[in-house]
Amino acid sequence: MSEHDTVRAIQWRNDALYLLDQTKLPAQVEYGRFETAAAVADAIRSMRVRGAPAIGIAAAYGVVLAARRRWREHPRQWRMLIEQDLELLAASRPTAVNLFWALARMRAYFQAVNGDPVRQLLQLALQWHEEDIAANRRMGESGARLLGDTKGVLTHCNAGSLATGGYGTALGVIRSAWRRGVEKIFATETRPWLQGARLTLWELQQDKIPATLIADSAAGWLMRSGAVQWVVVGADRIAANGDAANKIGTYALALLARRHGVKMMVVAPTSTVDWQSETGESIEIEERSPNELLMPYYQKDEGGIEAWNPVFDVTPAELIDAIVTEKGVVMNPDPQGLSVIQ
Amino acid sequence: MSEHDTVRAIQWRNDALYLLDQTKLPAQVEYGRFETAAAVADAIRSMRVRGAPAIGIAAAYGVVLAARRRWREHPRQWRMLIEQDLELLAASRPTAVNLFWALARMRAYFQAVNGDPVRQLLQLALQWHEEDIAANRRMGESGARLLGDTKGVLTHCNAGSLATGGYGTALGVIRSAWRRGVEKIFATETRPWLQGARLTLWELQQDKIPATLIADSAAGWLMRSGAVQWVVVGADRIAANGDAANKIGTYALALLARRHGVKMMVVAPTSTVDWQSETGESIEIEERSPNELLMPYYQKDEGGIEAWNPVFDVTPAELIDAIVTEKGVVMNPDPQGLSVIQ
Repeated sequence: MSEHDTVRAIQWRNDALYLLDQTKLPAQVEYGRFETAAAVADAIRSMRVRGAPAIGIAAAYGVVLAARRRWREHPRQWRMLIEQDLELLAASRPTAVNLFWALARMRAYFQAVNGDPVRQLLQLALQWHEEDIAANRRMGESGARLLGDTKGVLTHCNAGSLATGGYGTALGVIRSAWRRGVEKIFATETRPWLQGARLTLWELQQDKIPATLIADSAAGWLMRSGAVQWVVVGADRIAANGDAANKIGTYALALLARRHGVKMMVVAPTSTVDWQSETGESIEIEERSPNELLMPYYQKDEGGIEAWNPVFDVTPAELIDAIVTEKGVVMNPDPQGLSVIQ
Repeated sequence: MSEHDTVRAIQWRNDALYLLDQTKLPAQVEYGRFETAAAVADAIRSMRVRGAPAIGIAAAYGVVLAARRRWREHPRQWRMLIEQDLELLAASRPTAVNLFWALARMRAYFQAVNGDPVRQLLQLALQWHEEDIAANRRMGESGARLLGDTKGVLTHCNAGSLATGGYGTALGVIRSAWRRGVEKIFATETRPWLQGARLTLWELQQDKIPATLIADSAAGWLMRSGAVQWVVVGADRIAANGDAANKIGTYALALLARRHGVKMMVVAPTSTVDWQSETGESIEIEERSPNELLMPYYQKDEGGIEAWNPVFDVTPAELIDAIVTEKGVVMNPDPQGLSVIQ
């Protein structure tokens, strides 16, 4: 933590998980206390905690809470009983692969534990949480070096402290670049949840980093003006070939960037890589309720008014100039994709 | 007016101008009564009436109201006094050229009038209003013919009955195409004013035409899905070479369309053509208040948080496949641009 890195949305303290409620930012800064896996799953589903790495970390703490309850209930059958908690967590959101990665690793770990599992599982979750922040700092430095003497960057959605254990992926790069002298940071609003307008602005303001908001549809015109040289985004799932699923609109930003000679950087820890997906074709894209887009007036099912609300899209690897991970940077991913850092 | 064409946002009745307040749609359908040019200028500035052709028509009625007042005040000096009303109207919004076109034509006309000018100016305004609707119907047919057996179209902002004298430009084409069997009509939300989410959905619902809303940033992903074959939009000002200023985001849509083999149609009456602008370079782009984008929380000037809010952009003629006007259609505008229909 430092002056330009003050936000921690996920905290373990007083024997419980605390999550900053991201649906209430920026107007209210409110940490909820969570003591059950069901409540954590609900927080993920309702987007009180969001962002692929943050979902993974929150789910890991969710497993700790589940283990504590199941162990108390039934010290001999807790491993069987906890499966329903893992199912609940797994069903909370479909696209972020970090969630499934965290659950699989917690399960593998607790299969081997003897006696009370809680302390050991908690150690593991805390360690991942710390490692996530450390990985973000490394990625921040790598990404900032790539930016060189870039004057302006554009980011989409929120891939910041709020979306991770802390420091952020895309916003981690931007934090590091800010210290090195990048001049203008542009953030899209990111409809329908306004993760840019609400969350990215909030966390940059907390950290005393100036930022300029634009409407999502102003990105092409901004690029044409010459004000940005790089687009820097996170990812919710990356296929083995480098195709990257991220917030809806990222695909269009990548096309617009290529057309304007602006470069495209995707920043994500390797826990975001889905080695089972050869390409982005097999990534499940979450569609959320039309009512996130439709005004209340149109939410009655009449008059033929509806909405299409995919919340992610897939950017093909060939439109990405750099994929920055904690294990290394892949420039201009070729068909081998990320295998060089596997 | 017919079942699929029921909305008239500008009405002259009971010796006054009535404007449907577009800032209150869809929740409230409220027509305000206007009796002075100053009030009309204010309605244009505050976007209670918006859309280039509608602004032009409202301004023409505004001149009628001004003439009535100035003639009553001072039957000999009204032509001098009315200039301040015309200035007020001209200063209301900068980008839509129809406004300046309407004011220039009204001024030219009243210079030649003898005696009480009101009846004759009103006749002229009513005639333009009727001609605008007739022109929209003609453009609707021309555009719909171009669409051929298109299954899906995407429109941006609102270039409908609400933005014109009636029937609409882009939505006029879509109304005509709907009768001919187009299957899916997609509308962008169009931040920050949500002219798509509020106005296009409302007017299509009034007219029993089904429509599907998307987030602005979902347009690229929609095109990639193959669901749309044409983007159909209006324009606020078209340069002589065919470069078209329209709602922010149109430029990006045109680039995305070209990349996906989707065609781009701009629909506008020739009163939208600014023959003085050789290219789009010289079109003034209105920037509106950052507070249209920033949440109230960020509207205090502190913490380095700001917003860039250009509300139009310019689509180069080479990205436009068809410009549809009431005087004819220009396909793939070359450097001669619109001179063929001048």
